[in-house]
Amino acid sequence: RGGSSTSTSCPDLARINAEFCSAAYYDWSGVAHGCTRKLGMKICGFLQKNDSVDDKSRIVGFFNEQQPRSILTRDPRFRRTETDFSNLYARDLLPAKNGEEYTMQFLLEVVDILTNYVRKTFDRSTKVLDFHHPHQLLEGMEGFNLELCDQPESLEQILVDCRDTLKYGVRTGHPRFFNQLSSGLDIIGLAGEWLTSTANTNMFTYEIAPVFVLMEQLTLKKMREIIGWPNGEGDGIFSPGGAISNMYSVMVARYKHYPEVKIKGMAAAPRLVLFTSEHVGHLLMLSLKSHYSIKKASAVLGFGTENLILLKTDERGRVIPADLEAKVIDAKQKGFVPVFVNATAGSTVYGAFDPINEIADICEKYHIWLHVDGAWGGGLLLSRKHRHKLNGVERANSVTWNPHKMMGVPLQCSAILVREKGLLQGCNSMCAGYLFQPDKQYDVTYDTGDKAIQCGRHVDIFKFWLMWKSKGTIGFEKHIDRCLELSEYLYHKIKNREGYEMVFQGEPQHTNVCFWYIPPSLRLLPDGEEKRQRLHKVAPKIKAMMMECGTTMVGYQPQGDKVNFFRMVVSNPAVTRSDIDFLIDEIERLGQDL
Amino acid sequence: RGGSSTSTSCPDLARINAEFCSAAYYDWSGVAHGCTRKLGMKICGFLQKNDSVDDKSRIVGFFNEQQPRSILTRDPRFRRTETDFSNLYARDLLPAKNGEEYTMQFLLEVVDILTNYVRKTFDRSTKVLDFHHPHQLLEGMEGFNLELCDQPESLEQILVDCRDTLKYGVRTGHPRFFNQLSSGLDIIGLAGEWLTSTANTNMFTYEIAPVFVLMEQLTLKKMREIIGWPNGEGDGIFSPGGAISNMYSVMVARYKHYPEVKIKGMAAAPRLVLFTSEHVGHLLMLSLKSHYSIKKASAVLGFGTENLILLKTDERGRVIPADLEAKVIDAKQKGFVPVFVNATAGSTVYGAFDPINEIADICEKYHIWLHVDGAWGGGLLLSRKHRHKLNGVERANSVTWNPHKMMGVPLQCSAILVREKGLLQGCNSMCAGYLFQPDKQYDVTYDTGDKAIQCGRHVDIFKFWLMWKSKGTIGFEKHIDRCLELSEYLYHKIKNREGYEMVFQGEPQHTNVCFWYIPPSLRLLPDGEEKRQRLHKVAPKIKAMMMECGTTMVGYQPQGDKVNFFRMVVSNPAVTRSDIDFLIDEIERLGQDL
Repeated sequence: RGGSSTSTSCPDLARINAEFCSAAYYDWSGVAHGCTRKLGMKICGFLQKNDSVDDKSRIVGFFNEQQPRSILTRDPRFRRTETDFSNLYARDLLPAKNGEEYTMQFLLEVVDILTNYVRKTFDRSTKVLDFHHPHQLLEGMEGFNLELCDQPESLEQILVDCRDTLKYGVRTGHPRFFNQLSSGLDIIGLAGEWLTSTANTNMFTYEIAPVFVLMEQLTLKKMREIIGWPNGEGDGIFSPGGAISNMYSVMVARYKHYPEVKIKGMAAAPRLVLFTSEHVGHLLMLSLKSHYSIKKASAVLGFGTENLILLKTDERGRVIPADLEAKVIDAKQKGFVPVFVNATAGSTVYGAFDPINEIADICEKYHIWLHVDGAWGGGLLLSRKHRHKLNGVERANSVTWNPHKMMGVPLQCSAILVREKGLLQGCNSMCAGYLFQPDKQYDVTYDTGDKAIQCGRHVDIFKFWLMWKSKGTIGFEKHIDRCLELSEYLYHKIKNREGYEMVFQGEPQHTNVCFWYIPPSLRLLPDGEEKRQRLHKVAPKIKAMMMECGTTMVGYQPQGDKVNFFRMVVSNPAVTRSDIDFLIDEIERLGQDL
Repeated sequence: RGGSSTSTSCPDLARINAEFCSAAYYDWSGVAHGCTRKLGMKICGFLQKNDSVDDKSRIVGFFNEQQPRSILTRDPRFRRTETDFSNLYARDLLPAKNGEEYTMQFLLEVVDILTNYVRKTFDRSTKVLDFHHPHQLLEGMEGFNLELCDQPESLEQILVDCRDTLKYGVRTGHPRFFNQLSSGLDIIGLAGEWLTSTANTNMFTYEIAPVFVLMEQLTLKKMREIIGWPNGEGDGIFSPGGAISNMYSVMVARYKHYPEVKIKGMAAAPRLVLFTSEHVGHLLMLSLKSHYSIKKASAVLGFGTENLILLKTDERGRVIPADLEAKVIDAKQKGFVPVFVNATAGSTVYGAFDPINEIADICEKYHIWLHVDGAWGGGLLLSRKHRHKLNGVERANSVTWNPHKMMGVPLQCSAILVREKGLLQGCNSMCAGYLFQPDKQYDVTYDTGDKAIQCGRHVDIFKFWLMWKSKGTIGFEKHIDRCLELSEYLYHKIKNREGYEMVFQGEPQHTNVCFWYIPPSLRLLPDGEEKRQRLHKVAPKIKAMMMECGTTMVGYQPQGDKVNFFRMVVSNPAVTRSDIDFLIDEIERLGQDL
């Protein structure tokens, strides 16, 4: 077996662990393998005390990972060919003469690796990750060398590289991976992605992507209908992620109010100001404060970050409309021009929904572009039970909505939707004569290239379209309702539980549940700076242990004056109540002695 | 069989064609099926006159597409399961209880569809595309309905949808698809994409993409070494396409010269001007003039398109350095500040390489950021024979290089490389305390999120890394040399051939060969406006017929005062001399009566 995550500063332990593991392969204490010494010992001790069947099966599962069952061999109906790939190279595959057979065999081997991975992803007895430090992977694990060479490697080595890449990665579809807003591994979406990469085209014109271009058009229309724009009219495009979608919204707002900026630059406009919540979203890296997509957009587009004005929020993280109005008035008095307000529908940390209707009133009153960032919360529009949280979204001028988050679509899939037709085109087109180009034999209004800031654009639509076909709108609704129920379950489970404190009170609006775990040693400390300092370190320590053990992953971050807390989210359909229970058990197991 | 591409304004023809085809299934004249009436008749006539074996096999091949051979059934070693998918739904797949078996069977069916598609992609007896107009696909072909519904569809229908999506798409990997700079279907790259989508993570942090983040770092370093920066030092990131990579270069140049713009906006800077060739790249949609990535960047970033100054080119499309210097001096005299020069290494239409060293001299003299847009031409750096065309690239401050073009990597894969370390971070980071975040248990300098304008970032690296492993640097070199040889072959074949005129003289610098085909009816016309007007329509007409027949695809566009001409490019390793010959035959066959 390759390296363990044991620190290289402790080579003896690595050796001992390795021997230990091979000697006592199915032994309990084998769990120490893959964890740091101190942690390994702690877990071993814990497990010896708690010899439950559930734990046992989990641990044994760690080792089963080393004996994958092939879908092609375990089922007698499929027998795998015994091709020797050690003397075959990429050059022997198609388009090489007679390369078809080798190509098919090679692809089947890859599929075998991938389907094994899929199977294990859903298997709770496997780890979420097999953590290694950067220097360990860079030094090269046994048989896995990341360096690129002049000479080709055999297909056998390529297959090993594929296996190792998955082995040392993170199973984002595992039912106990709670680290990101995007999680899960939807089988239909996966099939859609495999097809997309096989089709290998881009979204620039109908000419080279006829089906995908139409699917995008129909799907965007459906999304606009769900938002509530009359007849689904308007425009939109799929972009490479929520940050870019939000950037589009700022660009389009600028173009609407100051179209001359396109030609003359920002010098042609007065001092423009933008508004967004101090809590605003896309904080994917949860321990990194102030990473905001609207802030990035203000820097990129030439507004300047100091012209982004942050709005106060209530204790639940929702923008206070009165604060917006006061700041709009203040900006105008200073001679600045308020041009854009972002209302967040589902903030990244708290899952807060800003009161869109009240914000829309202010935007209408002062003629400001209203954008709703529903990257995370947009999916709730599909739930009859929860869509009221976005009431007023139909009054927005533009909406960001990432199906790759709450709707479980594989990465990447993010849409920017714009209520007024023609603005995207006007904003990004570089060619006035475009619409009257008589050359092509088909209706070129379907070409999308000129709406985008990209030239070639990745095909993000197919997997989403295929998932929608396969689940129907009601399938997405069920999924969303279920995730929210699981969060309520977690909330009710911990809100009065010893050792827990909620970051904010009340049922979560989205699936975000934010909480501190307070280890026994801290519970009796008086409130004050010492307790704060110690509590600040608890979540990072537990997270580090989780990762080294590979049992589960959940995010944490500080927020304002609040020290590091856990942010739990659910978007993976594979999650059950038992996984929520597992997370809590794991936090307590790892955190009890801190 | 579903609809034909016959115009719906001619329903009788559609019916006649359909009957005709079913009656004379393997008949010659069946080629009329799928083409418009007039064209169909013309081809039929042509084929009856030219009853060669090669043509016959090509036409018969059109129908063979309807009888796919399964890799799982045709080989006795694999027998496909006989699962009935008509009563199964997405909800029956994983994570459903007992969903594993159905999941594996479903994925195998999908793989069967995809491998059939791969096989046919390389088969010259199949069509490049089965063209239909947007309204035809929107109205719904038999069994293929693009509309999204509330209720789910069965997995059987989902499989049909997958087949139809591929059927009505364009085979960008077909040896006779010459329409885009990106073409081909690399099997290793495809396997890499399948794995990437199965891993379903993003590039934001080492935490959730440890292996991919390191692969990106090593690959970028290798690319910088090849550019010639000492020890491969510098920085870089993979972005969603060449336009975004070029946008990064402008942003970083602005940050280097006017870092205060990040906070204060463009108002804090004097009037900044950018320079690029009047021929500059990323004109993917070849019949669309003035679609330029640097121009888009100047609009997006708040410079304004009028502050982008276009540079004169010589007859081969290369920037004239003296024109750059004159315009720099002129701009400075007007009080503007020249801040960025783009030198194109491989222009989209002519394949021209700007003289980088001479441009670099001027940039150094006037302290201007030099960017080299090697989106298309960067790949030539891997060829010992051709890399001299980019001499001076090591003097650039930044380089765009799209492996998804000349290197045959599946879409998308584009890198922006920056010589000075820290600028990308400084430009895009929204958090000063970032580097000293003590929370995480691993070295966070590997986290890339703060360098990017995106939050989540698609994993574009793995397929590229895997291809490099499997081919070695020498494999890419061979591929590039071979594509350039094929272009020379084309150039020599047509330069003195009757009915052809080259758009510019001399051997192509890249694989771009630009030419007019002059039908017999135009050859005797005197030069003048009438001939120009008629010639302008030739390429679009031939292209339209090519698409309706589905035999091949090649791009065309006007350029400056030059009327529409064909632009041939080669980047697909599947192309042989016979395919070049085929293209010329096809142009002459379709164009002879125009």
